[in-house]
This record gives sequence, structure tokens and C-alpha cells, in this order.
Amino acid sequence: MFAEYDVIVVGGGHSGCEAAVAAANMGSKVMLVTMNMNTIAQMSCNPAIGGIAKGQIVREMDAMNGYTGIVTDHTMIQFRMLNRSKGPAMWSPRAQSDRMEFASKWRQMLESHPLIDFWQEMVTGLIVRDNRVYGVRTSLGLEIPSKTVILTNGTFLNGLIHIGAKKMGGGRAGERAAKGITAQLEELGFESGRMKTGTPPRVDGRSLHWDRMEIQPGDEHPNKFSFTQTPVLKNQIPCHITYTSSEVHDELKKGFKDSPMFNGRIRGIGPRYCPSIEDKIDRFADRNRHQLFIEPEGRHTCEIYVNGFSSSLPEDVQYKALKKIEGFEDVKMFRPGYAIEYDFFPPQQLKHNLETKRISNLFFAGQINGTTGYEEAGGQGLMAGINAHLKIQEEEPFVLTRYDSYIGVLIDDLVNKGTDEPYRMFTSRAEFRILLRQDNADIRLTPKVAALGMQGMEERMAQTRQKLDAISRIEHFARDFSVEPGLINPYLETINSSPLPQKIKLETLILRPNVHFEDLRPYLNPLDDFLNQESEEAINSAEIEMKYSGYIKKELEQAQKHKRLEEVSLGENVDYHKISSLSMEGREKLMASKPMNIGQASRISGVSPADISVLLVHMGR
Amino acid sequence: MFAEYDVIVVGGGHSGCEAAVAAANMGSKVMLVTMNMNTIAQMSCNPAIGGIAKGQIVREMDAMNGYTGIVTDHTMIQFRMLNRSKGPAMWSPRAQSDRMEFASKWRQMLESHPLIDFWQEMVTGLIVRDNRVYGVRTSLGLEIPSKTVILTNGTFLNGLIHIGAKKMGGGRAGERAAKGITAQLEELGFESGRMKTGTPPRVDGRSLHWDRMEIQPGDEHPNKFSFTQTPVLKNQIPCHITYTSSEVHDELKKGFKDSPMFNGRIRGIGPRYCPSIEDKIDRFADRNRHQLFIEPEGRHTCEIYVNGFSSSLPEDVQYKALKKIEGFEDVKMFRPGYAIEYDFFPPQQLKHNLETKRISNLFFAGQINGTTGYEEAGGQGLMAGINAHLKIQEEEPFVLTRYDSYIGVLIDDLVNKGTDEPYRMFTSRAEFRILLRQDNADIRLTPKVAALGMQGMEERMAQTRQKLDAISRIEHFARDFSVEPGLINPYLETINSSPLPQKIKLETLILRPNVHFEDLRPYLNPLDDFLNQESEEAINSAEIEMKYSGYIKKELEQAQKHKRLEEVSLGENVDYHKISSLSMEGREKLMASKPMNIGQASRISGVSPADISVLLVHMGR
Ligand SMILES: Cc1cc2nc3c(=O)[nH]c(=O)nc-3n(C[C@H](O)[C@H](O)[C@H](O)COP(=O)(O)OP(=O)(O)OC[C@H]3O[C@@H](n4cnc5c(N)ncnc54)[C@H](O)[C@@H]3O)c2cc1C
Ligand SMILES: Cc1cc2nc3c(=O)[nH]c(=O)nc-3n(C[C@H](O)[C@H](O)[C@H](O)COP(=O)(O)OP(=O)(O)OC[C@H]3O[C@@H](n4cnc5c(N)ncnc54)[C@H](O)[C@@H]3O)c2cc1C
Repeated sequence: MFAEYDVIVVGGGHSGCEAAVAAANMGSKVMLVTMNMNTIAQMSCNPAIGGIAKGQIVREMDAMNGYTGIVTDHTMIQFRMLNRSKGPAMWSPRAQSDRMEFASKWRQMLESHPLIDFWQEMVTGLIVRDNRVYGVRTSLGLEIPSKTVILTNGTFLNGLIHIGAKKMGGGRAGERAAKGITAQLEELGFESGRMKTGTPPRVDGRSLHWDRMEIQPGDEHPNKFSFTQTPVLKNQIPCHITYTSSEVHDELKKGFKDSPMFNGRIRGIGPRYCPSIEDKIDRFADRNRHQLFIEPEGRHTCEIYVNGFSSSLPEDVQYKALKKIEGFEDVKMFRPGYAIEYDFFPPQQLKHNLETKRISNLFFAGQINGTTGYEEAGGQGLMAGINAHLKIQEEEPFVLTRYDSYIGVLIDDLVNKGTDEPYRMFTSRAEFRILLRQDNADIRLTPKVAALGMQGMEERMAQTRQKLDAISRIEHFARDFSVEPGLINPYLETINSSPLPQKIKLETLILRPNVHFEDLRPYLNPLDDFLNQESEEAINSAEIEMKYSGYIKKELEQAQKHKRLEEVSLGENVDYHKISSLSMEGREKLMASKPMNIGQASRISGVSPADISVLLVHMGR
Repeated sequence: MFAEYDVIVVGGGHSGCEAAVAAANMGSKVMLVTMNMNTIAQMSCNPAIGGIAKGQIVREMDAMNGYTGIVTDHTMIQFRMLNRSKGPAMWSPRAQSDRMEFASKWRQMLESHPLIDFWQEMVTGLIVRDNRVYGVRTSLGLEIPSKTVILTNGTFLNGLIHIGAKKMGGGRAGERAAKGITAQLEELGFESGRMKTGTPPRVDGRSLHWDRMEIQPGDEHPNKFSFTQTPVLKNQIPCHITYTSSEVHDELKKGFKDSPMFNGRIRGIGPRYCPSIEDKIDRFADRNRHQLFIEPEGRHTCEIYVNGFSSSLPEDVQYKALKKIEGFEDVKMFRPGYAIEYDFFPPQQLKHNLETKRISNLFFAGQINGTTGYEEAGGQGLMAGINAHLKIQEEEPFVLTRYDSYIGVLIDDLVNKGTDEPYRMFTSRAEFRILLRQDNADIRLTPKVAALGMQGMEERMAQTRQKLDAISRIEHFARDFSVEPGLINPYLETINSSPLPQKIKLETLILRPNVHFEDLRPYLNPLDDFLNQESEEAINSAEIEMKYSGYIKKELEQAQKHKRLEEVSLGENVDYHKISSLSMEGREKLMASKPMNIGQASRISGVSPADISVLLVHMGR
């Protein structure tokens, strides 16, 4: 019934969607098999894309021709650039999306790709011969042949939903769990584990007292995710903020004895950084309130997402506690929160191209690698999609590094260190944050993917080149342009910046903390005229590059050094037991693994950064 | 957790949605409990609303403030008035809807009703005491109290999906079946049965050769369903027509041995008038082709619905057969067709208000009453919603009759005769078709529902009154206005209508078969000026009323007579065995039931129309 495909993607979640698109844009014939075509690109949890570190990943995906950013731009109802008060390395775009429109736009974009086919059914197994995958088997017993397979099953593998003492099979509320794949992979020698995540109750916005909460509007001038020409958001919808209280906590505590989290019924490990409300109360017993973000699920629906109130306590406990929250006195629930346990595969079983070490041409991406979050899933999907294509073409894998992207950091962490709990991206995981900014994702990554020959990159490359040219034009201008004290001092005074005693170059002035091109324009006509010719995007990047050039230079040097150190060879004959300043654990792990170089050594779990310093000294560095 | 509701509606299908809205518009506090809030108002099968007899039902629902018509008007992508070449009693509006938008618009409309609450979960049982229902129980063990409950579970009760030899539990592809309710109702003494229906494969529109099929565009001037101010359709999308062939049939026959329909694995009875393709081939062995309508699933999707190709043959048989269809040579399937078996409750167990006879305050509506079709489901839902409210208010039931509506015919048939196979509405089921037209649904029904005090009826009533006034103005005008032969003969010639020898009244001219107000306007300035003041809706209805006044009068008289005869009393002491001209079966059934009057007698299954004539003669009529 089916001709052979180049790439089968199993699962139409965030990872599967990006994988399908990436492989297809590389030129592969793709088959997307998913359990329900009406749930393609469903957001399982909160209807938001981006956020701290995650927003950077979306920009990186977009720079590499992924579609998450485009879809978000078309369907968002609110946009905020988080961390704007901090340095630009921390700026993180975040949007609320309309849940239904997000899914529908994704589906539309997939359907409009001529190289992507669809099949709606559950995949129950893989066709494997001689440690190589040749396709998938479905619940109807069909075989779909393919040169490569990318598994992106998300939370569906033997998914088990918990609400208080009750549990039921499911991959998401109202959807079935997927069976068969874990068992087969285990038989093939894969190790699997169990993780859990959770989601808050959904409530009826018509029953909330909005006036008792703080309003949180979107940005006055909303930005967007995609580097391409996507629409700019109009008519934003605000979110609201409210808080739990000791009364709320007391209500919740009444349910602790029935909590599957506390009585051991849930064995999977949950995301430390996305804890349930019961977790927060338990772990931070001294805090008598926690912040909640009250987020709309869409433009036309009254369904509301209670961000921060994830819970698997019994539904009546959730309800009674909700009612004690300010603004929620008359709340009506649509459905309770729940926790879900699912299988994952410790990602050390993968190569850097996301192919499994054990079965060739089989790739894993997304939540089944132990991550959590749409963006982390999407980023992996995109990389797996590209690499599945390259594998077939017998080309070199396309691997990002810790120096060029958050996605590089993500995959490097997963593959080398694995993860004991659902892995979420943070800016702190990246060593070179000022290099990995949201504003320069295109400059960092677009040329790399264009070089692979991906379809649709010409325009993006042209745009990236234009942006680079513009940045250098702006830098030149600032280097040459002298600012007259008389023209600018009145302004500087208003922002408490010391007045200029004499002319200085714009290049120097821009280094001051509160000084921005945009604000200088009204006072400096030639600057204004000049910038009128340049895009906001380029002006913004140029300013950051100039303002932080010191830091940027330093990080670049560190990155170089890091790379060089990584390559410091250790050799097979080092007797780590003899290096007494190494930790005991470090010695054992090093003896067991015999890493080839410092880079490898540093990624062995149990080998601490201190151990690495000791090794470097030992090697004469 | 829940305060007591007036009405709980179980199920968010077409029946449940109309039920919720009707009860809420009557003023009841409503809780809609459904398994998945993302599938509210899903179209399980083809993305079309209306059609022959069904279109009339939609207009009737709309006249009674139901929302199906409004939702369809907002989301349709094609409109056709079927049977326009036949008499106006047969005119039937039909639309293709965008499947996703249809569901999303319905949900929006429900959410915007302040009296409708929502809960997402499976209902597993009813709270029943002393033969009265007091609420529902959910899979989490919650109890939701309510004064009345309306069950609209559709095809979900113990749903079982068949594809060839494979079967799996499910209420619809990709959705779970509902458990518990049937068993409980059986324990309470209800009789249940098993029915089945089926759906065709969905295919990838990008893989079809459209140029090898006939195009079927929408109407040039698309009409709409709602009597209210809904938008008029722009940018229609065409359907296409193609045919099966003996090669297609031969392919399909190869699967017959594995067909769950033919080997007895499916025991539920299927819809005779919506047969699967294998059924059609089997039953009409002499026909070497069947027509297929190739229908888009939405405005932005390439998913295509193969109307007429419903099948539960093995998926590879479906695929191979599809490929032999003209235009489908390179077809790609998204998913195979399937059959589904589900529980229903023979509807003789209901009263005319759709309340069960056995358990008071419990109502059944939709597919679980043995019907098939969104419109049939919606019509029942609306009636159940109104009647649940009236029950609580201890008011008289609101019952429609065979004389005033198709919905009356539907419910009367169900309650009196029951049904052995999925019941679908046809114009032939109605005795008084010329009275039950799509154009006069408002005149027939809006005043009745307004009289009940339903909310939102003022404007509809005002509009209906205006329309009635306009009709009578037009009738007056036509009665008074004389048509000059010189002005109109040139036109009459063009339509082969004999020329006027002398002036006649417009009233008389309009009786001619091909003569329409619209066409006369260019020749008769005063008519044109006059009609400029009137709505198209009113002009259309007035013309029909005038043109068919003879028929209308006759049917009205028959309906009166029918009503009178129905009331002819039989009494308890008639010894039917002695009336030798009665059929044997008739005698037995009549002896067993001892009907009170001819009306009741005529609705006993087994009592033929001939028996009724005999009885009437016997009673001296
Ligand atoms: C209840 C819940 C709460 C969450 N809470 C958070 C949170 O607070 N913060 C956060 O960052 N993330 C959260 N997440 C995680 C986030 O939803 C995921 O990280 C993200 O959706 C993963 O994307 P994915 O593509 O890997 O998998 P998914 O989005 O889960 O998609 C998997 C897809 O694969 C399909 N599929 C699965 N198995 C099969 C099969 N055998 N055959 C065919 N198709 C199959 C499914 O139908 C689905 O389309 C939560 C998830 C859930 C379910
Ligand atoms: C495969 C298939 C093919 C069909 N083919 C045709 C056709 O060719 N022609 C035709 O006219 N009609 C066809 N139909 C029928 C048409 O879809 C139905 O007549 C119509 O949808 C019935 O509406 P309903 O509201 O009664 O039920 P449904 O539309 O089935 O809706 C039932 C609703 O109830 C919910 N539900 C069920 N049980 C529970 C529970 N215990 N707790 C909470 N919620 C529950 C479900 O989630 C769903 O929302 C077909 C249906 C199916 C499934």
C-alpha cells in the first residue's frame, strides 16, 4: 500500500512537526504517521511559546527554516520580550498563542508541503533487521517502509494519567496511550525509564473576578519570532497575575495523603523547574504564597490556563483550593489538573545527530529523550529531520555545538550527560550566553543550514546578508559620527546620564548603559535620517554588538580556549588513581571510561568541574 | 464540587450542543459534560449540513433558535439548494462546511452563553432513585447533581470500530468508547440494541487528478440556513464528481470474504439509505458504477472526503479499489474507512417529549435513539432541551406534530414505530410536504417557541411578523395588479409560455409553471418598484404560497381531516378478532394494545394503512 519513504516521522507533536518539515525541506520524501490528524501540533500544556532560553530556541529553529516561529507569529494573542531590563543575552521572546489556531496553522503548513504525506494511525512497532530500521508497523498491521524513522512519541508511550488516587491510561487528557514501541525497543537492548509531568486545571474565565487580579498586558510594541515576513500582532489580550495564600496551601495539604506524588504511586521523575503546586508547597514550606499567571487559551474562548498551579491532587482538593485564590472565589473548573507518567529513553543512547547508537537509521527526538517543553522538542525534531536526510545521502551529520546555539547545548547535554529529570533549557546551561542571543540566531545559524542545501534558504540568506551589511553600516556610521554636546545634553540630563563635556563619537556614547539609538534619534537629525534606511532588526543587533562588544570579545576568546582545551588529549595510560587531588568519584569514573580528551572527560557524569581543573594542571595546562 | 444544575447534557455532539443551547435559552442552568472539549460539535462523518429533508430540519431548528444553521452559515465553503428543479416542497438547502471551523464556531457560541457550564470527562453512570434521575457520575467518581439529564452519547456507547478483520474499541476514529451507561440502563430495565454506521476513507487532495473528474460548483447565488442576519457566503469551493467502475467493484469484491459486514462479525444494523460501497455492490449487482462526490474537508486543508465510498473492507482493499477510480490513480490515503457498532435504545421507550417512560426527568436525544445524521440528532437535542426545562417548570411538554414539522414527523415516528435500522429523514416520511417547506419553517415554528418564552425570540418574532406582512402585501399587490400583454408577451415568448390575449391579474399569471416574480421584474416597472421594498425571503415565500395555493389548501384540508380521524375513538371493548377484513397481524396487535383512537392504532407497528381504512369504515367514517 505504501511506497518506500525516505523518512517516517512517528508523532505529530512539536518535535514531529519540525522533523517532518526539516527533512522535507532537505528534499526527503516524508511520511508523518500520527494517532489523530486533528491533534497535530496540539499544545499539551500551556498555550505559550518561548520564554527564557526557550524563546532563543524558537529563534534558532526559525533561523534554520523551522516553522514554530512562523506558526506562533500567525496565531499569537500576546507577546512579551522577557528580561528586557537585563542584558540582551537574557532577552527572551514569549508569546501566548491561540491553542486551536496554533494547531490548525501548523497542520495547514505541513499540508502545503508537497513532500510530506500523512497517515492517521498508531505505530505499534518498528521493522528492524540487522540492527537497522526499515520502517514501521501500525495497529492495523500495516507496514510502511522507509529508509529512516524518527520517533517523536512525546508523553504517549505507556502514558498513565494520575488524579489523586485514580489512574487511567492516556497520552494526554482524552487521548489514548501508545503501546508496543517501548517493549520492542527494550527487546532490542534499549534502556528505558519513566518520567512524569503535570498540568494545571482549566477553568471558566467567565467565573473569574478579573478586577481582583493584577493585569499583565503584552508589550506595547510587540515583537515576533520569525526572521521572515510574518504579520505583526494587533489586538493583544492581557494575562493576569494572582497569588496562592496560606489558606490555599492549607486546602491543598489536606489532599497530600492522597497525592500520587507523595505516596509513591508515581515513580517517574518530574521536572524540578516546573513543579506542581503541591511540590512547591512541600519544598518551599516557608513561602506563604506563589505567583500564578492566569492565561487565556485563545482569542475566542473563555477557557483559562492557571499557570503555576499544576497538580495531581484529587480534583475536589484542587477545586476547593482554587476557590481560595484571590479572583477565583466563584471559579468553575472545566477539568482538573493531572500528572502523567510516560516512558523515555535515556539519551546517552544517541549520537550527536540524534540517531540511536544501537539501531542505525533510527532517530529519537523530543520528550522521549527526557526533555520537557515544546521548544526543546521542536529543536530536536528539526535536527533529527535534517540528520535523517543527511544519513540517507551518506553525508556528514549536521551537529550544532555549545558555541553556536542553545540547541547545540541541549543536544550536547542530553547525549553526553543524559538526564535524571525532565530536561528543560535555561540560560544558565549555556556557557556562552552573550554569543547565543535571540537577536543573532539568524547570523549564527542561517548560513550553516543554507550550506546544507536546504530548500527555501535563499531568501533567508539574502536577508541575513543584508542584516550583516546593515550592522556594519551602522557600526561605521557610529564610528564616524560625532555627537554635539549641545544637541544631546538636554536629553542625557533627563536620563541622569552625565552631560558630554565635548564632542564624542556616537560609538562611545552608545556604550553608556541607558543610551539607545532609538532614544537619540529625535535629537540627532543625521542619525535619524541614516537609521530611517535601516531595519529595526539590524539597528537592534548593531546596538547590542557595539554596546557589549567587550563581553562578546571575551566570550569569543573563552569559547576558543574552551574548544582548544576540549581537545587536550589524555591518552589511555593515565592512572587516575594516582592523581590525589581528584575526587574519589572522579577517579573511578575516569578509570572506567578512559576518555580520549578533556572534552570527553568533562561530560562524564560524576566528573566535576574541579576534577577537570585538576586534570588540566596535571596535563601541564 | 458542583451546585445542582437544572439540566445536565451528556455529550457535546450535534444533539448535545442543541440541547444545551435550547435549555439555556429557556432559562435553565445547564452543564455540558463531554469527553473532550476539543471535539465539541465534531462532524464524525462528512463535513456537510443539510440535504434533502435534512436541510428542512436545519431550517426548523433555526426557526426555533437552534444554532446549527447559524454555525453552518459562518463556516460553510459551498452552498447548494438541492431539488430546485422540483417543486418547492422538495427544495433542500445543503452546505459543505469547514470541519474545524464548524466545531470551533459551535464551541464559541456555547461558551458565550452565560447559562452553560462545561466539564470535560466521561460520564459512566446516572444517579437514579425511585425511578427518577438526580444527576450523573463520572469516571473520576464525581457526582454532578441535576434536576434533569439529557443523554446524547451518539456512537460512543460501547463503540466498536471495524476495518476488515480488525476491530478496536472507540467512539470515533482516534477517540475512546464510553462505558457503563448501557449496562446501568439495562439494569434499570431499558432495552438496548446494536446499530452500525460507516465512513469512507479520507484521502490527500494533492494526489488527485481533478481534471479527470466533473466539477460541481456551488450555487451562483448561494443561499443560507439561518433566518437571522448571518453572513452570505463568498469564495465558494467546488466539489467534484467521479464514479466507481466494474474494475473498482472487482477490487472491492476481493475483500468481501474478510468483510465484517458479510461474514457476520458486525451484528448491528446499518443505515439502508447510507450504505457502504460493498453493500451497494452486493445489493445492486447489475449496476456497474456508482456516483462519488469528492468533497473538501475545509478551506485550508487538502484532506478530502470520498462521499459514497463508505467501507469497512480491509484497508489495502480500500486502497487498491480507490486507485482504480477515475482521478484517483495516484491517490494517497490519510486513513481508511471503517464501520462502527454502538448501542442504541429503541425509542419506543420514550414519550413524545423525549423523556424516558421508565425514569422520570431522564431524556434521550440523537443517535442513541436509533437515528443517523447530524440534523436528526440536532433536532432531537433541541426538543429535549426545551422539554427538560419545561419539565422542571412543571409545564406542559412541547410536542411538534406531523402537521407542523419534519422534527415532529421524526419524533412521532421514533416514539411510535421505533426503528430497526438507523433512521434517516426523507421527504417521503412526511405526509404534508408542501406544508413543511424550508422557506416557511419560521412561520410554522417561530411563534410556537416564542410562546414558550424562550430567550432571544423577540427579534425572530418581529422578523417573522414582518415576513408575514410582506407576503400578504405581495399577495394583495398581485391580486390588484393587471399585466399588459404588450409589456410581457415578448418575455413569455422567450420561455415558451403562451402570450396573453388580454390583460390579466398578476395573481393569475404567476400560476404558470415557469413564471417567477424575479423574471417579470425587468418588464413590469411598477412590480419592480414594489418588490424593491420587499425582502427576497418574503418574495420567494409569497410566490410559493400563491403558485401552490391549490396544493397547499388541499394538504391543509387533508391534515385537518387526518387530525380529526386520529381522534376517532375506538374504545376498549372493540373485539378486533371479529372484524374479518382486518389482517391477522393487525387483529392481534390491536387486541394486544387496545388503542384509544385511530391515531394510536395507526402507530402500532404491524397495523397497516389498509387495517386503518377497515377500522374507519367499521367506526362508521
Ligand atoms: C500533561 C502535560 C503537562 C505538561 N506540562 C509541561 C510544562 O509544564 N512545561 C513544559 O515545558 N512542558 C510540559 N509538557 C510537555 C510538552 O507538552 C512536551 O514537551 C511537548 O509537547 C513534547 O513534544 P513532542 O513532540 O515530543 O511530543 P508530544 O507533543 O507529546 O506529541 C507526541 C505526538 O506523537 C503522537 N504519537 C505518540 N505515539 C504515537 C504512536 N505510537 N503512533 C503514532 N503517533 C503517536 C501523538 O499523537 C502526538 O501527536 C507537558 C505535557 C503534558 C502531556
Ligand atoms: C463513523 C461514522 C460514520 C457516520 N456516517 C454517517 C453518514 O454516513 N450519514 C449520516 O447521516 N450520519 C453518519 N454518522 C452519524 C452522525 O455522525 C451522527 O448521527 C451524529 O453525529 C449524531 O450526533 P449525536 O450528537 O447524537 O452524537 P455524536 O456526534 O456521536 O456525539 C456524541 C458526543 O457525546 C460525547 N460522549 C459520548 N459518551 C459520553 C460520555 N459517557 N461522557 C461524556 N461524553 C460522552 C462524545 O465525546 C461526543 O462529543 C456517522 C457517524 C460515525 C461515527
